[in-house]
Amino acid sequence: MTASLAARVLGGDLRAIARAITLVENEHPAGADLLRAVFAHTGRAYVIGITGPPGAGKSTLVDRLTAEIRRTGLTVGIVAIDPTSPFTGGAVLGDRLRMQAHAADDGVFIRSMATRGHLGGLSRATGDGVLVLDAAGRDVVIIETVGVGQDEVDIVRLADISIVTLVPGAGDDVQALKAGIMEIADVFAVNKADREGADRLISAIEANLSLHAYGEDEWRPPIVATVATTGAGVAELWAAIGQFRDRRPDTRVARRRTRGEQRLREIVAQQCLQLITTRVGVEQWMRTVDRIAERQIDPYTAADDLVSSVLEGRDGA
Amino acid sequence: MTASLAARVLGGDLRAIARAITLVENEHPAGADLLRAVFAHTGRAYVIGITGPPGAGKSTLVDRLTAEIRRTGLTVGIVAIDPTSPFTGGAVLGDRLRMQAHAADDGVFIRSMATRGHLGGLSRATGDGVLVLDAAGRDVVIIETVGVGQDEVDIVRLADISIVTLVPGAGDDVQALKAGIMEIADVFAVNKADREGADRLISAIEANLSLHAYGEDEWRPPIVATVATTGAGVAELWAAIGQFRDRRPDTRVARRRTRGEQRLREIVAQQCLQLITTRVGVEQWMRTVDRIAERQIDPYTAADDLVSSVLEGRDGA
Repeated sequence: MTASLAARVLGGDLRAIARAITLVENEHPAGADLLRAVFAHTGRAYVIGITGPPGAGKSTLVDRLTAEIRRTGLTVGIVAIDPTSPFTGGAVLGDRLRMQAHAADDGVFIRSMATRGHLGGLSRATGDGVLVLDAAGRDVVIIETVGVGQDEVDIVRLADISIVTLVPGAGDDVQALKAGIMEIADVFAVNKADREGADRLISAIEANLSLHAYGEDEWRPPIVATVATTGAGVAELWAAIGQFRDRRPDTRVARRRTRGEQRLREIVAQQCLQLITTRVGVEQWMRTVDRIAERQIDPYTAADDLVSSVLEGRDGA
Repeated sequence: MTASLAARVLGGDLRAIARAITLVENEHPAGADLLRAVFAHTGRAYVIGITGPPGAGKSTLVDRLTAEIRRTGLTVGIVAIDPTSPFTGGAVLGDRLRMQAHAADDGVFIRSMATRGHLGGLSRATGDGVLVLDAAGRDVVIIETVGVGQDEVDIVRLADISIVTLVPGAGDDVQALKAGIMEIADVFAVNKADREGADRLISAIEANLSLHAYGEDEWRPPIVATVATTGAGVAELWAAIGQFRDRRPDTRVARRRTRGEQRLREIVAQQCLQLITTRVGVEQWMRTVDRIAERQIDPYTAADDLVSSVLEGRDGA
């Protein structure tokens, strides 16, 4: 099953891609098998991360940017991280609504991620989803997320390029985000730039950037004014992405290495946890949880006991 | 050192509390030792989680609610999760700015959390911070966060009670959050209720609640209109919290159990990862990362190899 699915993913079969992403998203064992099978064929897609506060118009901007990229003949895969999705089918609905924009175009694949964030689950699932799209031959993969949560921001800053979307008049939200944003942005997109206050926002970003003395060979994040609803500035945004890609190949290599190491850490931790809970057995695990609830043992000591009991090969059941 | 620090934490010493939270936040070994020492004295504080979109006025609401709680003579500990803090010292600044409101009152302790979210790090650090404040004898512990990130929402929904703060006119943000919010809220606080559109927002929440048929013994989340800047409705909010606490003791027990199990999982995963990276050694670890970057091996197979090499007791170095 997995072998044929892997072959179809590598062939770019849209339904196989959707199936594969569902497998990795649900942490189905077949998902890991699939990634093992296709991993050697990954690493070719250029990964663009787009983040920003809620209401910044990221979805519209991503749709416009996708259209711009398609005009160059490149294929696009989109992983949209929906913060509400852990609780509901909202992500699926989001897909339906958004697919319409590029419904007729097989060169665009959009998928929302609904995985829970525990122990890097969202980060792992997103990374795996990107790998699937990469293996499927998508030239460009876009990760879109609301960048308020740490995990989401961490995911985006590990893309080959991070685009931070801001809007005029968001006031304290922007203030609250600015500090963190200044450090993750490779490119700023000031969206809804036809709104009052756009110049003020751009000046504020400029002021922040000028606090940092950029060396000659250092990349100074450009600020691109966009109006996603009309498409204004989107071509300039795509051009800025191209400049960063061409001028910062070293950054790409470094981030991919970091990305690979982070995924390795996440998978090791997950496999370890699974192995330990399995070897310990449900009974002892629940007994331990009870004892913690009754304050008979603290979680750190309990964890020590469980880990060592397994690593010393004693069967906990 | 730890023993005396633990004693001072249990004694309620403010500087010892701050020191202890810094230790757990930085994942310093002494932090785990401290929690081992004080854990038996925890479980008495009532933990209130407050979340909502950026700009909902949560900080002001928390400050007002804190003043209300202080009026009853109860002591308060606040853990504020600042999404920007992973990148900057913003959290510290946040403390300074906010401490002023209750600066003269030893009955209020405010601390922002700046831990990275990797592998449940933020969740673990927050939980540990709550434990420290609990052990220090704080009657009420408030976890305040921007509830857009999955981790943040997960943390809040594991509190004894979850308060979701919404504001009129946030439009699509609220729409985007609503689906998820409906499932985590024990109490809704419609803040800035003097603004236009407050009635519309309350009706929208009511409409959502009415989609669910609440049984007689089921808790139907009340909607409290507040104006944090004036303090209006804050007494009613505190009353609603009291009603939930008195009427849903079972919920409290269940959530604490879930909270305990989640922390156990996080600690087990972290200890496992640390143990494996240590036993494998930096050289083999980096070699593995290189091979993944060069697509010579996929991260899942690599993780299998590392985990099994350690669990089979072979020294990876």
